[in-house]
Amino acid sequence: MGEETKATRREGNEVEFSRIVAFSDGVFAIAITLLVLSLHIPENLRGQALSSALWDQRQDLLAYALSFAVTGRFWVVHHRFFAEVVGFDGRLLGLNIFYLAWIALIPFSSEVLGDHGGEADAVALYAVNLAVVALLGWVMASYAHREGLAELEPRRALEFRARAFFVAAVFLASVPLAFAAPSAAPFLWLALFFDPGGRVSRRSDAAR
Amino acid sequence: MGEETKATRREGNEVEFSRIVAFSDGVFAIAITLLVLSLHIPENLRGQALSSALWDQRQDLLAYALSFAVTGRFWVVHHRFFAEVVGFDGRLLGLNIFYLAWIALIPFSSEVLGDHGGEADAVALYAVNLAVVALLGWVMASYAHREGLAELEPRRALEFRARAFFVAAVFLASVPLAFAAPSAAPFLWLALFFDPGGRVSRRSDAAR
Amino acid sequence: MGEETKATRREGNEVEFSRIVAFSDGVFAIAITLLVLSLHIPENLRGQALSSALWDQRQDLLAYALSFAVTGRFWVVHHRFFAEVVGFDGRLLGLNIFYLAWIALIPFSSEVLGDHGGEADAVALYAVNLAVVALLGWVMASYAHREGLAELEPRRALEFRARAFFVAAVFLASVPLAFAAPSAAPFLWLALFFDPGGRVSRRSDAAR
Amino acid sequence: MGEETKATRREGNEVEFSRIVAFSDGVFAIAITLLVLSLHIPENLRGQALSSALWDQRQDLLAYALSFAVTGRFWVVHHRFFAEVVGFDGRLLGLNIFYLAWIALIPFSSEVLGDHGGEADAVALYAVNLAVVALLGWVMASYAHREGLAELEPRRALEFRARAFFVAAVFLASVPLAFAAPSAAPFLWLALFFDPGGRVSRRSDAAR
Repeated sequence: MGEETKATRREGNEVEFSRIVAFSDGVFAIAITLLVLSLHIPENLRGQALSSALWDQRQDLLAYALSFAVTGRFWVVHHRFFAEVVGFDGRLLGLNIFYLAWIALIPFSSEVLGDHGGEADAVALYAVNLAVVALLGWVMASYAHREGLAELEPRRALEFRARAFFVAAVFLASVPLAFAAPSAAPFLWLALFFDPGGRVSRRSDAAR
Repeated sequence: MGEETKATRREGNEVEFSRIVAFSDGVFAIAITLLVLSLHIPENLRGQALSSALWDQRQDLLAYALSFAVTGRFWVVHHRFFAEVVGFDGRLLGLNIFYLAWIALIPFSSEVLGDHGGEADAVALYAVNLAVVALLGWVMASYAHREGLAELEPRRALEFRARAFFVAAVFLASVPLAFAAPSAAPFLWLALFFDPGGRVSRRSDAAR
Repeated sequence: MGEETKATRREGNEVEFSRIVAFSDGVFAIAITLLVLSLHIPENLRGQALSSALWDQRQDLLAYALSFAVTGRFWVVHHRFFAEVVGFDGRLLGLNIFYLAWIALIPFSSEVLGDHGGEADAVALYAVNLAVVALLGWVMASYAHREGLAELEPRRALEFRARAFFVAAVFLASVPLAFAAPSAAPFLWLALFFDPGGRVSRRSDAAR
Repeated sequence: MGEETKATRREGNEVEFSRIVAFSDGVFAIAITLLVLSLHIPENLRGQALSSALWDQRQDLLAYALSFAVTGRFWVVHHRFFAEVVGFDGRLLGLNIFYLAWIALIPFSSEVLGDHGGEADAVALYAVNLAVVALLGWVMASYAHREGLAELEPRRALEFRARAFFVAAVFLASVPLAFAAPSAAPFLWLALFFDPGGRVSRRSDAAR
């Protein structure tokens, strides 16, 4: 299952290029929508009140909200990255599929987190899954940049890298914390709403 | 996870723009098709006749039909709104993803409504979900209008707002009714088939 | 939830038009792929051999194959019809969503057919679902033709109508047969592989 | 359900053509994302530790990774093939739908493999499913080539055929092996990472 040796330029191959993007968007859209399958109220409540059954889903709803936000955010980053891509080769396609395999895994990790949120293993599984996504995004961007397949200005490339490392670092840091205090670890993820990449960007805008 | 500070124009960025639309369409299409998963006949009926098992699904079928109609209608509104969008920024992307999170939740609310339709909590969950969708649609349109990202004529903007408020009001009004008379509340939703926005539109057409 | 009063031309609105088509394709693609969820082998076979558990799925596999072929065929017809569409209005959008609601129902009807294939109710449910799809396809085409939204030559329109009626008739005829002889009814569906529309088409080609 | 007698050229029918491609991409994207549904941790572990429940999923995770890689690879091949397609007729559409039916079956075969990986029947089911995909890919390409619907240079056509046969041969060879030594058969699939088609390609590049 080898690789093409030469890259295809985006220009003049817009249909092929847009298929890659459409396939990626499809996987993102399906993964993000499958998150809802982790929410479930049994048809037969066996005497439990519906309101209490819904209350029992509160952790699953939190996991749904978090995973929707994070997956949506990764989609925005993927979208911005591919807007700069000017060509592709077999290896970039392969990296993209490997990246998507970890995106498509999010509904599983998210369901486990929702059902077993107080346990270290669930938090660790989720954190590792998302850290791998962030790191693979960085690998993909670095590869494209090195091979001349993406036209990122140096400032944008730096910003992109800073962001990917920050996201990966936050998720990886939560793994040891999960084994010490499983319920505390997800609070660390709130750090994701601070944005060093954005700050780099604004600082350099100001410097102009 | 910060925001871009300047907007990207649609013109000259058609590929990027169409990805946003394609991703949204993907989430709509998947959410609307996942509705079918709430319908289920067990393989082993344990002595029950199939016809009676199908008859037991009548409320789920009603919920399926209602949710398909409502989700389809929201898709039409989203489609018309994005036809007027001429640019996007990080915040509009973020609002759109938040909006889609509530669209993707519809299969869950719909399944609960189908399984527990006679209970106030199920009706309230469904009504709140759909009222939030309508209100977020209005927030998104207002934001785009204010920032010059959408070129809605004043009349269309008024119509759009009237429609969103009317849909949200009908769903919110059914919440207290649900706690008084759960089975009656869904009948209030039939009011959705009256259309004040359309009337505003026709009246102003006539005034010309 | 009213209707637009004037139609939008396809020309100059290609993005909007292609969203309708993309949304429809999405629902078709998801419905056809969800068919696989009706196939299931339990993880714990409780002493049953895997080969015998697979053999028990033979009727589900037949239902999968039939439904994939029929849904795929409806997609081809939808695709050909929309290739002739030159404009759309709110009513055509609404009809299309109503049509898609019956397409999205196929995985349910197909699962019931696979699990309870020997029972009249299962055969009738499946037949009615697909007859409604065929009839709605015809309603949609007639409406578009009448309103000048589709540019079908008279010969093609006749062919289209003949085909839709033939498919609906075969499925509807199998309903009474299902109550007389449930296992025989699906054999009637083999008549679908004869194609009067095609014959009309070839005859008129020859007549030129 | 007959066939069109004359082919439609891609040129001038880009919208219709891109719908075929979009529908295929949709089925691929959904099938590849549904693979995740084979991974499941029960909400109620009944005293089992989460870590041990996750460890029990290791074979399912391997099946997920393998199926994601193989399905992704088939998507790349499909994508390259359709980049050379210049026209389509009813038969090519029909072949493509038949091909997609086997792609959409992969989540089922993959789930059985993950749950019953040590059993010959599971390995054989998986191998046959993927061999059929490879062979149908070859049938589709041969048909398109013969009818002038695809503009493959002879070298590319040879490469394409060599690759399809190699993939089919590896999967078919693993079927008898599965009945002799079920656990050994999947190791044969590692041969897929050798690439005779690529070698043919590189050799002919060198020969220029």
